[in-house]
Amino acid sequence: MVLLGACGGSGTESVTGMPAAPEKKDPLPSWNEGLAKQAIVDFVMRVTLPGSPDFASESERVAVFDNDGTLWSEQPLYFQGLFAFDQIRKMAADHPEWQEEHPYSVVLSNDPTQVATLTESDFFQIIGITHSGMTVPDFRQRVSEWLASARHPRFDVPYSEVVYLPMLELLEFLRAEGFRTFIVSGGGIEFMRVFSQEVYGIPADQVVGTTTETVFELRDGEPVIVRQPELHFLNDKGGKPVGINRFIGKQPLLAFGNSDGDLQMLQYTAGGDDPTFMGLVHHDDAEREWAYDRESHMGRLDKAWDEAEQRGWTVVSMQRDWNRIHPFEE
Amino acid sequence: MVLLGACGGSGTESVTGMPAAPEKKDPLPSWNEGLAKQAIVDFVMRVTLPGSPDFASESERVAVFDNDGTLWSEQPLYFQGLFAFDQIRKMAADHPEWQEEHPYSVVLSNDPTQVATLTESDFFQIIGITHSGMTVPDFRQRVSEWLASARHPRFDVPYSEVVYLPMLELLEFLRAEGFRTFIVSGGGIEFMRVFSQEVYGIPADQVVGTTTETVFELRDGEPVIVRQPELHFLNDKGGKPVGINRFIGKQPLLAFGNSDGDLQMLQYTAGGDDPTFMGLVHHDDAEREWAYDRESHMGRLDKAWDEAEQRGWTVVSMQRDWNRIHPFEE
Repeated sequence: MVLLGACGGSGTESVTGMPAAPEKKDPLPSWNEGLAKQAIVDFVMRVTLPGSPDFASESERVAVFDNDGTLWSEQPLYFQGLFAFDQIRKMAADHPEWQEEHPYSVVLSNDPTQVATLTESDFFQIIGITHSGMTVPDFRQRVSEWLASARHPRFDVPYSEVVYLPMLELLEFLRAEGFRTFIVSGGGIEFMRVFSQEVYGIPADQVVGTTTETVFELRDGEPVIVRQPELHFLNDKGGKPVGINRFIGKQPLLAFGNSDGDLQMLQYTAGGDDPTFMGLVHHDDAEREWAYDRESHMGRLDKAWDEAEQRGWTVVSMQRDWNRIHPFEE
Repeated sequence: MVLLGACGGSGTESVTGMPAAPEKKDPLPSWNEGLAKQAIVDFVMRVTLPGSPDFASESERVAVFDNDGTLWSEQPLYFQGLFAFDQIRKMAADHPEWQEEHPYSVVLSNDPTQVATLTESDFFQIIGITHSGMTVPDFRQRVSEWLASARHPRFDVPYSEVVYLPMLELLEFLRAEGFRTFIVSGGGIEFMRVFSQEVYGIPADQVVGTTTETVFELRDGEPVIVRQPELHFLNDKGGKPVGINRFIGKQPLLAFGNSDGDLQMLQYTAGGDDPTFMGLVHHDDAEREWAYDRESHMGRLDKAWDEAEQRGWTVVSMQRDWNRIHPFEE
């Protein structure tokens, strides 16, 4: 195990004038000492320490993370949904008929009570119209502009700052230990690629997500990839292990999620050769973030929680295990 | 540019007793000096030499390679097709009805004239039945056993040795220069993953290929991914840029193919910011390999060749540009 920051001349000198052993820097300072942190560090030591009976080669060190609710917040709504709403408002100038047309009229009403009545099929329609018809670079540009201008309604910071500092530390810790870190999310693959490198240090080809159909065209000789309204693959629930196998081609050693949509990804990871690590983020901190689980529409944690308890997977309590949640906290 | 093998104590001593400049080792020894080799080396220098006006950061250094006919041979038939035929022969014991049932009867006839009459739809049927119904590890095991036992009919070596040494050198050269190398092939993604690391040094998650539908299941509590007969995505022609965008999320700087099925991948690469490199392997060496292009059913090179000539892409003549083709040659 490489200890972050342990190299170099940071050791203090002892009274004998000999350099003392360099101080071991905690790679997970936002995690409180406790069972969750201990389980993570123990697992990483077991698979990375040369000579360990559970040593895994670097090519096997694959770690997968859900995004919404696991790496960043998902309240009051999936951020990609809020992006879609903002796009509807922007596009409405060219669509006067939307004032009367469901489900666009609901979005334009800005009335949370009405918005709460939107069905899954309404959401797919809203995502479809705001996420298709343009080239991939055009779409990324829209996301990029939105991230630069929109602010989270509760925290009044850009959405890309409403991320979990303890999880950023975990991503970096794993990479320092030779893991490759992947996002495996129900979110749109191109939406996430706009910020995955900058925010999480995860490059575009290590993002696995939901995909729309796309087609290749030559427009006046210029090659473009054009986004279509049809869904190509929904990377959620049983789709997550399918997406992992398709994009990564390896069973992960570590998986982290926060909801029932992550259960199959955790089951798939747990099916690999020991040791494996399965983690769930439990949103139980209404004061600093949100508290929701078994009854929530967004990010419901029910079956996966039961299975985690039965099988001894690590359930991280935001309240108990994290001394800081967001990077913007003092 | 890092010169392969230039480090270490391999320099000879000069008469003054001072070490002479280390000899620059040619990273592409199987390539004859000529326009093709020069174009490759010049391109790599332009994008990797610090201070070059065309310098590209490592995250941009994406290189994509077709497989059949570009990295390994595709004659007398795509090797994956020959694998499927061998599977049909193996499975025939449990399917006595296949002796009379088209297209299986044709395969079982072992008659090249009859086999030549198989249509694309016949091939899809043969691929479907031999490539589905099992878990992903089971399928990989079958491919693995086949690669270990089957021999190429002309060269009498395992299929995984019927690769092009100059292309192996190119892959390694590019990686030494900070490129990430990807396969982008019409071949099956799981088929290629069985040998991509060992033969090409390309890990599973850098293989982009044709995919079947797969489903996640728990079998007696064991999580498995099961291959379905339905095609999920055909990674050929216009599908190649779509696959590149979906899996890699970046426009490549370099693309190499050998047939019209690679044209769109080359067009897509050429559409990126200069400098980019587009290469085609021309099979014009019947003595050491095969000679086929405009009229061939397998790996036809016609439109892509015309476009390469018009746009100044590099067409590699196996006869002229490669002093060795296969690793097993003396």
